[in-house]
Amino acid sequence: MGIGPGSLDDMTPRARQAIVNADIVVGYNTYIALIRALVENKQLIGTAMMQEIERCQMAVDEALTGKKIAVVSSGDPGIYGMAGLILELVMKQPEAVRPKVTVIPGISAVGAAAAILGAPLMHDFAVISLSDLLTPWELIKKRAEMAAAGDFVIAIYNPKSKKRVTQIEEIRQIVLAHRPSSTPVGIVHQASRTGEEMELSSLAEFTALPIDMFSLVIIGNSQTYVAGGRMITPRGYRV
Amino acid sequence: MGIGPGSLDDMTPRARQAIVNADIVVGYNTYIALIRALVENKQLIGTAMMQEIERCQMAVDEALTGKKIAVVSSGDPGIYGMAGLILELVMKQPEAVRPKVTVIPGISAVGAAAAILGAPLMHDFAVISLSDLLTPWELIKKRAEMAAAGDFVIAIYNPKSKKRVTQIEEIRQIVLAHRPSSTPVGIVHQASRTGEEMELSSLAEFTALPIDMFSLVIIGNSQTYVAGGRMITPRGYRV
Repeated sequence: MGIGPGSLDDMTPRARQAIVNADIVVGYNTYIALIRALVENKQLIGTAMMQEIERCQMAVDEALTGKKIAVVSSGDPGIYGMAGLILELVMKQPEAVRPKVTVIPGISAVGAAAAILGAPLMHDFAVISLSDLLTPWELIKKRAEMAAAGDFVIAIYNPKSKKRVTQIEEIRQIVLAHRPSSTPVGIVHQASRTGEEMELSSLAEFTALPIDMFSLVIIGNSQTYVAGGRMITPRGYRV
Repeated sequence: MGIGPGSLDDMTPRARQAIVNADIVVGYNTYIALIRALVENKQLIGTAMMQEIERCQMAVDEALTGKKIAVVSSGDPGIYGMAGLILELVMKQPEAVRPKVTVIPGISAVGAAAAILGAPLMHDFAVISLSDLLTPWELIKKRAEMAAAGDFVIAIYNPKSKKRVTQIEEIRQIVLAHRPSSTPVGIVHQASRTGEEMELSSLAEFTALPIDMFSLVIIGNSQTYVAGGRMITPRGYRV
């Protein structure tokens, strides 16, 4: 289930109810902290980052005992979240005992970031994660190349981490071969959480701005413009 | 603001509060009907489909008189919704009188459809609308070509309408040149609304199934598989 970007105001009633109904709430410690007010009387299984498989396997093991488990992802669990891993692990169980899985969507990080920037995703867009832990860097670059060639608005998850600092510049170069350097780029840091910040920049210089693992970057298409401090990709209406 | 796919259970508290606080609620009649329970004592400006500019201009005109307006989109207003058009119209006003615009995200149609299908969007994906009312068909086809070449999961909005029936087959042919005919394809009809249906098919034959303007189609990438009736795109964990 998706808790949304962070504030309880952005969590749907359906997601909230799933937590209320759960016997155990499972998630990355940072995300559990975001919903502290809802889980006070719950059994919690929190782990550090990078232990996704162990965490999800614990959730499946508990579900096999008949308990109701809420596995929380920030944003939307179906977008780089835990929905896929949970389903992969559940399908390894014999069909007769397989726990039932319901995926409850949440406000995605990209949707939250877009709303803060204005309306950058009003036309066809591509979503790419720069995390090369589980994906070959060559494939990520190829996707950026194709998205740039197709004039997609490009939303970038995981643009940088402590260890991964140069990749976003490589992506900038790839897109720059297809779009003017004046193309608007929006950066949102901690979307809809404490510490939220947004900055509007351009393809010429956005990589000079602070970007980290809590940032989401949206590169406009050939029609995107900035007006009144908002990033707008026109849908094509004659206004 | 986004009301989400349709059920009040999928509308965030922030969106709900925006409706409660509004003097006037503006939207396509079908969407206003979905939130009837919340707007009983509100002034409503509902219009038929295809009158987006008139509807949004009415909202801006009312906002210029100092009223609080909630412009509702189904799903996420920032994804093929009204956020962009509202911002475009507002920015035409002189800065001194320009109404303040807050975009409130909602659960997107693609997020809702993905959750119903399983976890098809767990890796990089492209979102394409086949509506050629405001976008040249050649550009839409080029985007499908690039998304297919980049091995993106491809989510298709507006796959068919009464007048537009052959385009989805053209898109199928384009993707088929890059992916095996066994590639899973999910179709969700009326996601999270009365009449919700989902069907799992393949690139070989999905266009033979019922698809209309209330359907959303998700074409898997080269790694997507179906297990236990769910469509899963692996993130790349070794499980």
